[in-house]
Amino acid sequence: MSKLVGCIEAGGTKFICAIGTGADDIRAEVRFPTTTPEETLGQAVAFFKEQQAELGPVAAIGIASFGPVDLNPDSPTYGYITTTPKPGWAHTDVVGAIKAELDVPVAFDTDVNGAAFGEYKWGAGQGLNTFVYFTIGTGIGGGGMVGGQLMHGLLHPEMGHMMVPHDLTEDPYPGHCPFHKDCLEGLACGPAIEERWQTDAANLPEDHKAWDLQAKYLGYLCVNTTLMLSPQRIILGGGVMAQPHLFAKIRSKTQELLNGYVQTPELQDNIDNYIVSPGLGDKAGRLGAIALAQALI
Amino acid sequence: MSKLVGCIEAGGTKFICAIGTGADDIRAEVRFPTTTPEETLGQAVAFFKEQQAELGPVAAIGIASFGPVDLNPDSPTYGYITTTPKPGWAHTDVVGAIKAELDVPVAFDTDVNGAAFGEYKWGAGQGLNTFVYFTIGTGIGGGGMVGGQLMHGLLHPEMGHMMVPHDLTEDPYPGHCPFHKDCLEGLACGPAIEERWQTDAANLPEDHKAWDLQAKYLGYLCVNTTLMLSPQRIILGGGVMAQPHLFAKIRSKTQELLNGYVQTPELQDNIDNYIVSPGLGDKAGRLGAIALAQALI
Repeated sequence: MSKLVGCIEAGGTKFICAIGTGADDIRAEVRFPTTTPEETLGQAVAFFKEQQAELGPVAAIGIASFGPVDLNPDSPTYGYITTTPKPGWAHTDVVGAIKAELDVPVAFDTDVNGAAFGEYKWGAGQGLNTFVYFTIGTGIGGGGMVGGQLMHGLLHPEMGHMMVPHDLTEDPYPGHCPFHKDCLEGLACGPAIEERWQTDAANLPEDHKAWDLQAKYLGYLCVNTTLMLSPQRIILGGGVMAQPHLFAKIRSKTQELLNGYVQTPELQDNIDNYIVSPGLGDKAGRLGAIALAQALI
Repeated sequence: MSKLVGCIEAGGTKFICAIGTGADDIRAEVRFPTTTPEETLGQAVAFFKEQQAELGPVAAIGIASFGPVDLNPDSPTYGYITTTPKPGWAHTDVVGAIKAELDVPVAFDTDVNGAAFGEYKWGAGQGLNTFVYFTIGTGIGGGGMVGGQLMHGLLHPEMGHMMVPHDLTEDPYPGHCPFHKDCLEGLACGPAIEERWQTDAANLPEDHKAWDLQAKYLGYLCVNTTLMLSPQRIILGGGVMAQPHLFAKIRSKTQELLNGYVQTPELQDNIDNYIVSPGLGDKAGRLGAIALAQALI
């Protein structure tokens, strides 16, 4: 039987902490807004202390965090959130804060790598060794596995900021990204949709041209991901993807843009199984952090 | 001492075959034009048979091939060049043709993964676990390693065809790619430069605006690669990169486009060491195929 572990899904807006042994066995869970590091990490520590008194000790804690983060175990700032623009959070020692109060091994990765790992264990990434998980929401982020390992590298990928074609005649919206204006995130994140169309995305009907444009940008995302990484599957999660009609449009746009260049059944007849929604829904992040903790013990 | 192995750098224009033990010990080498599969693979077999009679048996042969290729060992067409538009070469069983005549283990990968592996063993990829090798020439191709393994996935990456911004006001050239017109290869491969400026690239002086435009497109390549893969280094080889003045322009454009988004010394003060030329020059492919063969034994 799997051991009891803890997890923290550390988001820029809210934290979710949980204790359990796997996707089907979460024994306690709490969520609270992300305020200052002291208060927020303090609340996480308090949750684990209280719950351990009741449920017994956790063998490890996994953290899937907003970033950028330092994932290099040899770095003096390993386990930190580094240069985030989020007020108060730049250069925060997340792993250190948890380890100082709770004497357990701590696994640490990006929020999107965490979600990818959750999908690998219990969701749409099962049995795959190379796949990508994207979240399309307030921002756009991507993580994944290549050759059976979570993607790290120099720092960690920041896939959402890739630069893609932007036809200003069709879409004069200048873009929402404070760094790059019209990178993919700048064109296709939730706030960009709302700013471009001057309404909440939920108010846009399915036949609104907003969704064709959105599918085009997310088609570029899927095309460039296919060409750069040759994944076995692309998982699209996050608030914007809560519009299920978007999937068919994105799949069709991806095929149109690739124009038959990559010849494989997965991209032709079977594309419904290539660009998919998360098997774990919006729980991928915290369940992934559970899986990260279990991988440590 | 390393064992004697053979290699084939199988290009769409020419084949290079060699026998040796490593980068500093190539004992025989031959090159011949790529004609029909029968003739060309026959010449490769004849070279190894003749040379083995003189130099002794090779323990394995590595092949770094133009593609697309089938790299899945479980596939019935493993070792084939698959859907290439090159006349006569579609669905050619390259590994089978070599194994049928030469009774040795055969390693098989893409030309760019081969070059990346050569750079990993003896060139600019030494000591790294995540890096990318691009060739910018008649076409644009990319391969590399992630987490210490060569990139494969569903098929293999086709990085050169990524889609990037194309400002038609600045550059009305429609693009050279038969599949995507103005994908990166369509805008920045050697034939695109020549068609756009109506002259051989070698005739364009260093201060010609052609090179600023070229650096912009290759800047997009480096930016998107940085964001997708977070490599520790990007190696740019191929005929177009024989213009050494291009490197400074590409590095500067990459920094300008990233606009400080990825905060790391490698991308700020030390970018000369991040975007580099191949340590093995134009020998990366065949030496990589030697390394692939050695990894098999």
